Amino acid sequence: MNIILFEKHELTPSPPPLEVILKPRDKRTIHLLKVLRKKRGDLFDAGVLEGNWGTGRIETITPEGELACSLELHQAPLPRSPISLGVGFPRPIQLKRLLRDLATFGVEKVDLMGTDLGEPSYRNTTVLTDGGAREALIQGAIQARDTVIPVVQNYPSLTKWLEERPWSERNPLLIAADNLRPQGTFAQLNPAAQPLLIAIGSERGWSDRERDKLEAAGFCRLSLGTRALRTDTACVAAVVLALEKIGTLGYA
Amino acid sequence: MNIILFEKHELTPSPPPLEVILKPRDKRTIHLLKVLRKKRGDLFDAGVLEGNWGTGRIETITPEGELACSLELHQAPLPRSPISLGVGFPRPIQLKRLLRDLATFGVEKVDLMGTDLGEPSYRNTTVLTDGGAREALIQGAIQARDTVIPVVQNYPSLTKWLEERPWSERNPLLIAADNLRPQGTFAQLNPAAQPLLIAIGSERGWSDRERDKLEAAGFCRLSLGTRALRTDTACVAAVVLALEKIGTLGYA
Repeated sequence: MNIILFEKHELTPSPPPLEVILKPRDKRTIHLLKVLRKKRGDLFDAGVLEGNWGTGRIETITPEGELACSLELHQAPLPRSPISLGVGFPRPIQLKRLLRDLATFGVEKVDLMGTDLGEPSYRNTTVLTDGGAREALIQGAIQARDTVIPVVQNYPSLTKWLEERPWSERNPLLIAADNLRPQGTFAQLNPAAQPLLIAIGSERGWSDRERDKLEAAGFCRLSLGTRALRTDTACVAAVVLALEKIGTLGYA
Repeated sequence: MNIILFEKHELTPSPPPLEVILKPRDKRTIHLLKVLRKKRGDLFDAGVLEGNWGTGRIETITPEGELACSLELHQAPLPRSPISLGVGFPRPIQLKRLLRDLATFGVEKVDLMGTDLGEPSYRNTTVLTDGGAREALIQGAIQARDTVIPVVQNYPSLTKWLEERPWSERNPLLIAADNLRPQGTFAQLNPAAQPLLIAIGSERGWSDRERDKLEAAGFCRLSLGTRALRTDTACVAAVVLALEKIGTLGYA
C-alpha cells in the first residue's frame, strides 16, 4: 500500500483534525503495524477516497491493536489522466486486473460492454456488484497514491454504448484500437488531441459490423501493433502510448 | 490459443509432411475440437517451438478423440523485438503474468534478479524450475502467434548481473526505469537506439547504491511517469513505449 486510503464515512468529522479508528484486523492496520512497522506517534501517507491526501499520525494503539489516527489532508487529488475507455467485457479474472491497472493510470472512466466476438458468459460475473471491482479500483489507486477511482459503467453491447454516447458533452477524440484493419497507428496521435476516448475490443477484436458502427460514430481505428494482445495488456498499452503522446504521462 | 504450438520432440520427422499425434486429453486437442469445433480435414494455424509456423490439418480422429495431424510449416519465426529486460524479482503471482506478457511482445531475454528493495523471499518460488515459467512464456507466445520464447535467466542480485554483463557482445543502449530520480524520460528515446536493454526495479524501485552501480555500468535512468506502477505493469509500459519509439511496435 503506497498510501492508506479511508472512506469518507470512516472519518470523525469535527472538530479538526480529522480522526479515524482502524480495527485490529483491518488490512490497513496490519499494513501499518506489520509491514511498515509503525509505532505510536509515527506518520504515514493517507488520503480519503474522492478527496484530499496528506499525512496521518498514529495517536494511540490499544492493547488489542486498534489504532486511533489523526489526519492532515491538505493536498488536492492528483490530476486525472484525460482518457476514458470503452472495453469489450473481458474474462472475469482479467477484469479485476484491468480495472486495477486503469485506476493506477488515473483514467476518468471505464465503460464495459458486450461485443460481437466477446464471450457472452463473461458478463455474468458478479465482480461489478459484489464489491470486487471497487476493491480492484481502490488497489490500483493506492498503487499510484491516488485518491480518486475511475467511474465504471456497464453496457449490454457496443451498439447500445454508441447509441447512448455517454461521452458526448466532453467531445473527446474517438479512437478504436484495431490491429487487423487499422486506419493509422497510436504513434500518429496528435499531442493536442485530448481528452481521448479509446475503445478496445474483446480478445478476438471487432466484427466488421462493429467497425462500421464505430466509424459511423466518428471513431478512428488505430493499431497497437501486429502482435495480438490480451484485452488487459491492450488497455495498458493503449493508455501508456496515449498518455505519452499527449504529454501527460507525467514526469517527476 | 491463437496458434497451436508443438515441441520439436513431438513431431514425427520423416518423410515430409511432418506429423504429430495429439492425445484426447491434451489441451490443444480440446481447444481444436471443443473451442474451434474443428473436424477431420480442417486446417488450423500451427507452429513448432523455436521453429517455423504454418498450417496444420486434422487427418484422423479416433473414436477416443486422439488426433493425427499433418503440418506444413514454411513460415520463418516472427522477428524478435530488439529489447531485453533485467527485472527485479517480482511476487510469484506477478512473475508468470510478466513472463507471459513479455513473450507476447517478443522480447529477446528476461533476466530476473534480486534487488536491494525487493522482497528476498520472492526468489524462493519454484516457478522457474517446475515448468510454470516456461508454460507462461509459451502462453504469451501463442497469444502473439509467435513460435519463439524469450530466454529467462536468474541472477542473485543487480550487482552480480552488472558484473557478468550478460549483454556485452550486443552493445545495446542501457536504460534503467526510474520514476523517482530520472535523468530523462522514455519519450526522449532515440529511434535509432536499438537493441535496448531495460532494467526495471522491484516494486519499491532502486536503492541509491543501485542507482550508482547502474550509472557506473552505463545505464541511463528514464522515467515512466509520476504514477508508481506494479513491476508487471511497468514492464509492459516500458516495452510498449520503447517499441513505439524505435518504430518496431509493428503495424499491420
